[in-house]
Amino acid sequence: MKAIVKARPGPGLELVEVEVPRPGPADVLIRVTATSICGTDVHIYRWDPWSQHRIKPPLILGHEFAGEIVEVGREVAHLRPGLPVSAEGHIVDHTCAACRAGEYHLCENVQVIGIDRAGSFAEYLVVPAENVWVNPPEIPPEIAALQDPFGNAVHTAYAFDLAEKHVLVTGCGPIGLMTIPLARVNGARQVIATDVNPGRLELARRMGADVTLNPAEEDVVTAVRDLTGGGADVLLEMSGAPAGIRQGLEALRPGGQVAALGLTGRPFELDWSDLVVTKGVTVKGIYGRRIWATWHRMRGLLTSGAVDLRPIITHRFSLDEFERAFARLMNPGDEVVAKIVMIP
Amino acid sequence: MKAIVKARPGPGLELVEVEVPRPGPADVLIRVTATSICGTDVHIYRWDPWSQHRIKPPLILGHEFAGEIVEVGREVAHLRPGLPVSAEGHIVDHTCAACRAGEYHLCENVQVIGIDRAGSFAEYLVVPAENVWVNPPEIPPEIAALQDPFGNAVHTAYAFDLAEKHVLVTGCGPIGLMTIPLARVNGARQVIATDVNPGRLELARRMGADVTLNPAEEDVVTAVRDLTGGGADVLLEMSGAPAGIRQGLEALRPGGQVAALGLTGRPFELDWSDLVVTKGVTVKGIYGRRIWATWHRMRGLLTSGAVDLRPIITHRFSLDEFERAFARLMNPGDEVVAKIVMIP
Amino acid sequence: MKAIVKARPGPGLELVEVEVPRPGPADVLIRVTATSICGTDVHIYRWDPWSQHRIKPPLILGHEFAGEIVEVGREVAHLRPGLPVSAEGHIVDHTCAACRAGEYHLCENVQVIGIDRAGSFAEYLVVPAENVWVNPPEIPPEIAALQDPFGNAVHTAYAFDLAEKHVLVTGCGPIGLMTIPLARVNGARQVIATDVNPGRLELARRMGADVTLNPAEEDVVTAVRDLTGGGADVLLEMSGAPAGIRQGLEALRPGGQVAALGLTGRPFELDWSDLVVTKGVTVKGIYGRRIWATWHRMRGLLTSGAVDLRPIITHRFSLDEFERAFARLMNPGDEVVAKIVMIP
Amino acid sequence: MKAIVKARPGPGLELVEVEVPRPGPADVLIRVTATSICGTDVHIYRWDPWSQHRIKPPLILGHEFAGEIVEVGREVAHLRPGLPVSAEGHIVDHTCAACRAGEYHLCENVQVIGIDRAGSFAEYLVVPAENVWVNPPEIPPEIAALQDPFGNAVHTAYAFDLAEKHVLVTGCGPIGLMTIPLARVNGARQVIATDVNPGRLELARRMGADVTLNPAEEDVVTAVRDLTGGGADVLLEMSGAPAGIRQGLEALRPGGQVAALGLTGRPFELDWSDLVVTKGVTVKGIYGRRIWATWHRMRGLLTSGAVDLRPIITHRFSLDEFERAFARLMNPGDEVVAKIVMIP
Repeated sequence: MKAIVKARPGPGLELVEVEVPRPGPADVLIRVTATSICGTDVHIYRWDPWSQHRIKPPLILGHEFAGEIVEVGREVAHLRPGLPVSAEGHIVDHTCAACRAGEYHLCENVQVIGIDRAGSFAEYLVVPAENVWVNPPEIPPEIAALQDPFGNAVHTAYAFDLAEKHVLVTGCGPIGLMTIPLARVNGARQVIATDVNPGRLELARRMGADVTLNPAEEDVVTAVRDLTGGGADVLLEMSGAPAGIRQGLEALRPGGQVAALGLTGRPFELDWSDLVVTKGVTVKGIYGRRIWATWHRMRGLLTSGAVDLRPIITHRFSLDEFERAFARLMNPGDEVVAKIVMIP
Repeated sequence: MKAIVKARPGPGLELVEVEVPRPGPADVLIRVTATSICGTDVHIYRWDPWSQHRIKPPLILGHEFAGEIVEVGREVAHLRPGLPVSAEGHIVDHTCAACRAGEYHLCENVQVIGIDRAGSFAEYLVVPAENVWVNPPEIPPEIAALQDPFGNAVHTAYAFDLAEKHVLVTGCGPIGLMTIPLARVNGARQVIATDVNPGRLELARRMGADVTLNPAEEDVVTAVRDLTGGGADVLLEMSGAPAGIRQGLEALRPGGQVAALGLTGRPFELDWSDLVVTKGVTVKGIYGRRIWATWHRMRGLLTSGAVDLRPIITHRFSLDEFERAFARLMNPGDEVVAKIVMIP
Repeated sequence: MKAIVKARPGPGLELVEVEVPRPGPADVLIRVTATSICGTDVHIYRWDPWSQHRIKPPLILGHEFAGEIVEVGREVAHLRPGLPVSAEGHIVDHTCAACRAGEYHLCENVQVIGIDRAGSFAEYLVVPAENVWVNPPEIPPEIAALQDPFGNAVHTAYAFDLAEKHVLVTGCGPIGLMTIPLARVNGARQVIATDVNPGRLELARRMGADVTLNPAEEDVVTAVRDLTGGGADVLLEMSGAPAGIRQGLEALRPGGQVAALGLTGRPFELDWSDLVVTKGVTVKGIYGRRIWATWHRMRGLLTSGAVDLRPIITHRFSLDEFERAFARLMNPGDEVVAKIVMIP
Repeated sequence: MKAIVKARPGPGLELVEVEVPRPGPADVLIRVTATSICGTDVHIYRWDPWSQHRIKPPLILGHEFAGEIVEVGREVAHLRPGLPVSAEGHIVDHTCAACRAGEYHLCENVQVIGIDRAGSFAEYLVVPAENVWVNPPEIPPEIAALQDPFGNAVHTAYAFDLAEKHVLVTGCGPIGLMTIPLARVNGARQVIATDVNPGRLELARRMGADVTLNPAEEDVVTAVRDLTGGGADVLLEMSGAPAGIRQGLEALRPGGQVAALGLTGRPFELDWSDLVVTKGVTVKGIYGRRIWATWHRMRGLLTSGAVDLRPIITHRFSLDEFERAFARLMNPGDEVVAKIVMIP
C-alpha cells in the first residue's frame, strides 16, 4: 500500500510502498477513506526540536482520519467489517493515576497514533479495537476525519457553560474556527473572534462570529471591553501566541473564565498577578478529548446539523499530492488555508 | 381587535371584540403573528380548581406567542417598531429573595402574562419592555411562538450534563418531545422515551428517540435496565403522572439524576426511602426558563438548526376557530395532537 | 469469646459464647474496644419486616465500632497488629456500575458488616483489610466507634456548600445532632433544628443549634420563614418522618437545596408539584459514606477539635448489659437517649 | 488620638497626633483594640513603585483590625456601641459588573481601608456600617484582627474540595501557614508545605503540615511526586515566587487544581503549554474574601476550635513601638517572624 513516511531524521516526508499491516487479536484493520493534516504533522515534516525528541523514524504519519473496517482481530466481538469508523488517537494504559481517575485523555503513558506508532497517511492502518469509534453513516468521510480536531474544539467550548456569555475566541486556526459555531449552539450572547490573518477572519464570520478583530490593525482589548460592556466572560484561547494570551486575559472581565488549548512554542512572560490572581480568573488547560464523552457530544452536534464543518475544509488532495498539500499549509501566501484533507 | 377571553367564572371561552391596549411608558405594543395553546390554557378553559383559585375574569388568555412591535413606550430606548419579538411571560419584582439571588424564574411575586394579566390570544398585546426578546428574523413566527414551552424543555434538558449518558424521557407531550433532540445535541449516548399514546411515541421517534416504550404494553423498568445495562443515568420527568415518576425513578441507576418538570395534579405516594434516599439520587425541580440564559441558548439551538420543532406543530387554526382548536386538544380521539398554533 | 447474636428468626437477641473468628488471607482480626448501637440493630432486635427479609440467623450484630488489630492475613502488607482501627461497613464488589463510577457507597452487590456477615457486638471480629481505616491514636475508642454514623452526618452536611446559608435540620436523632456542629464549621449563617422530643432539642442546643423548634408545639414552617426572612436555604432532612419532610420542604425558600438521609418506613404522600418542581428545589438522596473521602474529612474534623461528639454519647454499657442498653433505646421514657456505646 | 501615618511621599512612617474621626450618617466609629501588620503595609513603608502609584499621602495605614463600636451614624439601625467588630476592608460600589454578579470582592471601583482611606493603625477609625462584621465575643481581639488575612486563607483553601486530596502549600508566610490547618479540617489526605525559611517550616509543622520541604535544600518536585505517588492533587500557591509557582505546577499531577493567591512582583516566564495546557490543570486566581460567605465560614472555623491561629502571632507591640515592629518584619535576622499585632 501507499504511505507517507518520515523515513529518517531530518526535514521532509516520502511517499513509499509498504506492506498492509496485520491486525493483532484485539485490533482492527481499517481502509482509510479520508485523512486530514494536523499542525503536528507539519512540525514533524519540518523536523523541529519537539519532533527530533519525540519521533522515532521510520514512521507513517497521520492521526485524523475516517475509514472502513476491513478486518477484525479474533478477540474483537463488537465490531465487524464494513462499519464506517474513526478512532481516538490516544491509546491509554488504564492503570496510571489519570486513567484511574477517569481522565484517560491525560494518561501518563499514552501512545499516540501517527506519533508513537503507524498512522493514517496510508491506504490502511491498524488500531486497537478499544480505540475505534463507529461513525454515523450519514457523516461523509472528510467530515468524520475532522473529529480529532473537532473533539479538541468541543472539549474546549464545553469546558464552561456559555449560555448568556460574551465569548472571545483568540486564534482562528481550524480548531479556533470550530469553536465559533459551538459557542453559538451552546448559548453564547456574542462571539468575538481574533486573528492576524484577514482570510481566517472572513472564515470566522462564515462560521458565525458576530464580530471579528485583527490585533494587527486595532486595539483588541479596548474593542472587546467596548463590545461587551466591561470585558468578555469567557476566553477560548486557541492561538498559543503569547500576545494573544495576554490580550485575551486583559480583555476578560474580573472573575472571567479561560479554556486554554493553544500551545506556545516556549515559556513566555505572563503577568500572573494582574491577569490571573487579583482578577479572580479561572484557567482550565485543555488537552485532547474526553474519552468517550466528547465523542458522544460530537455525534449529537454533527448529526443534528448544529455544526457545519464544511467551510473549514479549504483544500483536498490525493496521497500522491502530499507535497503540494504540505506546501500549501506551510506557505499559504494570499490563500486562505484552514483544513486540508487527503483522500487515499 | 379580536381576543379570546375568559369572560366570567365557569367553563368555556369567548371570542370578543375589545379595544387595542395602550402601552405604558415602559411597555411595548405587539401585533401577534402566532400564538400557541398551552395545557394551562386548557385548564382555564375547563375552569378546574386551580383556575378557579388563580384566574380573575375577565381575562384575555395566551402566553406563547411571536409578534412584531408596533409601538414602544416613551421610556423604551432599546426597542423599536418593526422588530420581530416574543416575550418572557414571567414579570418579576426584582426585589424578592429569589430575584436577588439571580433566580428570577422563581420570583415570589411573579405576574404571568395570560394568567395574571392580558395575554396573547388576541391581535395585539402589551408587555413590559424588559420582558421582550427580539427574535432572530430567520425564525418563522409559529416556531418563535413555541419558545415559551421550548424554554421549559431547554431548562430541563440542560439541568445536567448529558454527554455519554443514557437518558430516559418519561412523557411525550409537546415539552417532552422537545427534550428528545436536545438530549441528542447535548451528547446523550441513548435517548429512551415513554408514553401511553402510540401516536406520540411515533412523534418521539421522528424527534430522534432511539427507543420508545409504552408502559401500557410493556414493563418499562425492566426494558430500560436491559437497554442501559443497569439503569438510566438521567431521567427527564415530563409526564407529571405518579406512575411515570415512579417508573422513571425505578429505571434509574443508583446515583442517577432527575430533572423534573411534569406537574402532578395532586400529592401522591412516593417511595422516598428506596427511590431517592438510599439510591443516592439527585432530583432537580424545574420551573419556567432561566432569564435570560435559557433564551440565549434557544437562539443558538434554533438558528443553528440543531433542533427542528416543526414536527411538533400538528395543527394550525385562526383565532376565529379557537373552539375547534381547543376541542382537538381536549378530545384528540385517534389523532396525534401535539402543539396547536393559532394565527390571528 | 462473647457475642450478641440473633440466634433464630423472631424478636430478641442472645449473649452467647462463640469461637474467635479466624482471618482469611486478605482479612484482619480486630479486638473490639467500643461498639455502639444503631437504629438498624433495634430493627433487627424487634425482627421487623425489613429484618425478616434481609437477616439470615444466626448472625452476630453490630457495625459501629473501634478496635485494635490483633492479627493480619498473610496477603495484608499495609497493616499490622496493634494499630487502632475502625472499618467501613460496606464491602463492595468493585465491578458493578456504581463502583466503576467511583460511587462505591452505592455498590449494587454490597455486603454489610453486622447485617450480611458477622459484626462487632463481640470481643473480636474479622473484616477485609481493604475496609480497615486506621484511627488517629488520639481519638478515644468510644468516639472512633461513632465514625459510621458520623460519616453519614458528614456525607449529608457536605452535600452542599453551607457558607452563609440558613440551614434547617429536621430530626435530632444521633445523626441529626451530629450535623449541627458540621453546619457551623461549614459556615452556616444560622442553624435551626427541629424535633418533637424536648430532651433532644436540649442536646441540639448543646451541639450548637442557634434555634430549636418543636413541631408538636409550634408552627415550624412559619417560624423558619420568620427566622430566615423567607425560607431556609438548605434542609438537612434527618427525620425520615413524612411530616418532617413536608414541613422541611415547605420551610425552604424557592431554589433551596435538600440533603435527605432520613428513611421513611413506607411510601408517603408528597406534594411533588408544589414542594419540589415549581419551587425549583434540588434534593440529593444521601446513603452511607463516600469511600474514602468522607473518612478523610472525619479525621480532619475530629482531630482538629472542630466537632466534639461526646455530648451525643448518653449511655455506656458492657456487652453483658446489652438487654438494658436495648431497653433504654426502645423505651427511653423521660430520659434523653442519643448514642449508647458498649465496651466489651 | 495617635495614628501611624504616611505623611508624605518617600520611605518611612510617622506616629502623629490627629483628630478622632467623625462617623457620617451611614458609618460607625470604632475604637481599635488590636491591629496587625500586612505585607502591603511594609510595601507602603518602603514606598515601593506600587505604593508610589497607589497611595496619596497623608494616609493612616492599617486594614487588619478588631475593635469596639463607640458611635454609630444616624442611619445605622442594626449596630450599636459596645459591639466587638472587625470590617471587610473592601468598600464596593454595588453597581459594577462584578458586584452585579455577586462577586463583590472583585469590584472594579473598590476603595480599600488603609490604602485608599484612613485605616486602623490608630486609636480609632471610621468605616461604613455595611462593611462591619460583628465578632463573636469569645474571639480575642488579636485573633479577630487576623480575619483579613485569614479570610484570604479560607478563600484559597475552600476554592476546591480537598477531601482525600494530597495538598501542596507553596510558601509559608502568615497566609500560607493559615491554609495548613484549613486543608486538614477540609479533609486533606496529606498536607505538604514548602518554604526556604527553616523557621517558617517549623511553624508549618506546628500548624499541622505532615511534611515540610525546603527548596533550597532538596528537589521539591521529586519529593512531592514520591510522597504522593505521582503528584499533588491540589496546589495552594501562597509564595508569589516564580520558582515556587513553577515547582508547584511541576509537582502537580495531570488534571490537578491550583488556587493561586501569592503575588509576583512582576511578570515572569511561565511554561504555559507544559504546566497548564497539556497537563489539563485548572488554575483559580484568588483575591480578597467572598463577602460575606468567607466571613461566615471564618466564624464557624474560629468558634468551633477547628483552627488555632495563635502560633502565627509571633510578636506584639504597642503603636508607639511601630518602628521596632516594622524593623522586625523587614529584617527578621534569625528570628521567626510571622504575624505582628499592635495594641493601641
